[in-house]
Amino acid sequence: MKILEEKILEEGRVYPGNILKVDSFLNHQIDVGLLDVLGEAIYEKYKDKKITKILTIEASGIAVACSVAKHFNVPVIFAKKSKSLNLGDDVYVSRISSYTYGREYDAVVSRDFLGKDDKVIIVDDLIAIGNAMKGLIEICDQAGAKIEGIGICIEKGYQHGGDDVRQMGYDVTSLARIDDMKEDGTIIFRE
Amino acid sequence: MKILEEKILEEGRVYPGNILKVDSFLNHQIDVGLLDVLGEAIYEKYKDKKITKILTIEASGIAVACSVAKHFNVPVIFAKKSKSLNLGDDVYVSRISSYTYGREYDAVVSRDFLGKDDKVIIVDDLIAIGNAMKGLIEICDQAGAKIEGIGICIEKGYQHGGDDVRQMGYDVTSLARIDDMKEDGTIIFRE
Repeated sequence: MKILEEKILEEGRVYPGNILKVDSFLNHQIDVGLLDVLGEAIYEKYKDKKITKILTIEASGIAVACSVAKHFNVPVIFAKKSKSLNLGDDVYVSRISSYTYGREYDAVVSRDFLGKDDKVIIVDDLIAIGNAMKGLIEICDQAGAKIEGIGICIEKGYQHGGDDVRQMGYDVTSLARIDDMKEDGTIIFRE
Repeated sequence: MKILEEKILEEGRVYPGNILKVDSFLNHQIDVGLLDVLGEAIYEKYKDKKITKILTIEASGIAVACSVAKHFNVPVIFAKKSKSLNLGDDVYVSRISSYTYGREYDAVVSRDFLGKDDKVIIVDDLIAIGNAMKGLIEICDQAGAKIEGIGICIEKGYQHGGDDVRQMGYDVTSLARIDDMKEDGTIIFRE
């Protein structure tokens, strides 16, 4: 998606160790105008699928999930990381190993909000090695919910998460897919 | 605000220890239609204030902050809890003691996104004892940013956070203010 690629080239910063920071518009500061365009693009892809829920994980997935959900007029569910004292025991849980934070945590969704009649799009801001996404897929499996698609703003295509999920048979829509980054700041997108 | 009070009466659940769960529409599952109405109400209150940024804290503040920000057409900044490996050192930090989770964490905002020329509304889904809000206020003070108002969806008026912040001199807009809750599920709103 041209507008997102241009924004990444303009404002994204590349650090050693294949770290791309997009925190000026996507996951610390949020450009709400851009967000609306990204949400609409994911909606356009899946609008005929009779979607009932948009599933994401806290925190930076929430903004884009709300933008997608607004177009479908369906609720967002965001999986919580670790177990809140306020959450109750009747939950789906998936253990996730975080590449960014170097630790493990539980992704938790209440059984009240996801079930076998749901048709879901899973949404997130980024996919790299894909552990969070695989956890959300596992939660949908536990719920018996049908995953109609996976919508990602930025796929780090030089890592394997997006392709792993495609090989699992899911339809993945990445609005920008980065094939390579260099330490001089060059970012190469998939055509 | 009538529509929010009705939603709380309809879907909110009261648990022993003054715990109100609104996770079916506000902070686990999100009703995006309601969210839009809440965001617009906060916008209406501060629309003449030349707001430049909406500040919140992850995770459940992000959805309502995006809804407010869309009306102003300004960016959201969400403070991160604890220190991400990807965040860099050039940050504002405030130490927060969490009532809900029984632990302390740092709220962190990059210096790149908040400064002395900013006019800010701080937004959150809930205020109880107000520690997270006081942390966000401290971050604005560190940045020299001007706080034009504080917008809260649900104020637990039987706790002291909202009044503490009013006594600090800030303009607080609570869309629903709960004066009392009983264990039989009764919820009493401020007139």
